[in-house]
Amino acid sequence: MSEQKVVIILSGGMDSAVLLADTIAAGVQVHCLTFDYGSKHGQREQQAAIDLTGYYEVPHTIFRLDLKNLLKSNLLQPGGEIPDGHYAEQSMKQTVVPFRNGIMLSIAVGFAESIGFEGVAIGAHTGDHFIYPDCRKGFLQAINCAAIEGTDKGIYIIHPFDAMSKGDIAKLGASLRVPFEKTWTCYKGQEVHCGTCGSCTERKEAFAQAGVPDPTFYLN
Amino acid sequence: MSEQKVVIILSGGMDSAVLLADTIAAGVQVHCLTFDYGSKHGQREQQAAIDLTGYYEVPHTIFRLDLKNLLKSNLLQPGGEIPDGHYAEQSMKQTVVPFRNGIMLSIAVGFAESIGFEGVAIGAHTGDHFIYPDCRKGFLQAINCAAIEGTDKGIYIIHPFDAMSKGDIAKLGASLRVPFEKTWTCYKGQEVHCGTCGSCTERKEAFAQAGVPDPTFYLN
Repeated sequence: MSEQKVVIILSGGMDSAVLLADTIAAGVQVHCLTFDYGSKHGQREQQAAIDLTGYYEVPHTIFRLDLKNLLKSNLLQPGGEIPDGHYAEQSMKQTVVPFRNGIMLSIAVGFAESIGFEGVAIGAHTGDHFIYPDCRKGFLQAINCAAIEGTDKGIYIIHPFDAMSKGDIAKLGASLRVPFEKTWTCYKGQEVHCGTCGSCTERKEAFAQAGVPDPTFYLN
Repeated sequence: MSEQKVVIILSGGMDSAVLLADTIAAGVQVHCLTFDYGSKHGQREQQAAIDLTGYYEVPHTIFRLDLKNLLKSNLLQPGGEIPDGHYAEQSMKQTVVPFRNGIMLSIAVGFAESIGFEGVAIGAHTGDHFIYPDCRKGFLQAINCAAIEGTDKGIYIIHPFDAMSKGDIAKLGASLRVPFEKTWTCYKGQEVHCGTCGSCTERKEAFAQAGVPDPTFYLN
């Protein structure tokens, strides 16, 4: 069988870093795609993605997609408040970028077809389900059908973490020796992880649940 | 029943112009969304879209989406050749932008959710099916499922022309008195329609099949 070729959507966070390591470990040829969509924490995340692809020595494309003027989300507005606390809280909905995964996956599918790759992989997991409808299995299965139907080569979308928690992903990453210190999670995009935003809260919990040492320096 | 609110993907071509007129005639509140994706004929199409939304006095958003460096297509490359002839020819595949409808629809779905609209409409028809897999019914149904599953409000995608030919659309447009002279079709983006590219060929045939006077000035 010829080598599989898969585009990895790499945000620079810990989930997609583990996805990258796991896919490489499976012997798949990868090309990473990072979206610079003008979010507050985008610069930090992008640097993390660059560091990770350098570490794994894999090709990397960064695509600038400016959704600020089109989509409503506090994550994209310069002054918009980033609430502290847990994803499972109503206030976190302010940070939802409507249909972001749908948009990223669609562009990644076009990109995969353009470079002669066969599939696209995304690291969505159960912890994202509560507030992000476009991280849920029903959505991922439907967009996979749309990609297969809507491309010449039948580009597929895989979402291997869709039944895993972020803790499960941390544990898998540790077993694959993922350099977690190179990943970026915080939504606030300051010098160091704030330790209090929804994203940092989930990150801390994931390492704790997995029983994996957390290499992150948090402000709080 | 409250008024339906639908985002119309308006290219500035005759199909989406008829879609706009037909949707307005059905009493639906519309907001038009045009993509400036850096194609050769983009400037002409965009002006046509602006003229059409001015004529119908409906809100209009133009979104710059530069896919040139990401996706392979002669339509997006400054020097890329635009073949003459019919869509049903192999050479026309050079002008396919991979998964373009998937990308445009996904962004439109995020936009609809952002502005409190309920759906998105696209004017894909049977004439597009041969070379564009993302114009076919199977794709459109799957991406509709993905949009419903992947958004908070369950944004739907309608594709009312998916079983119609371009000739059927021209006929419907004439009955709705669509100002076809304001629409732009040619892929070459010169001062006037070239009359020989795949897009112009389909336009001429549509008017002829419908028995509708063609107001277009063609170079050839």
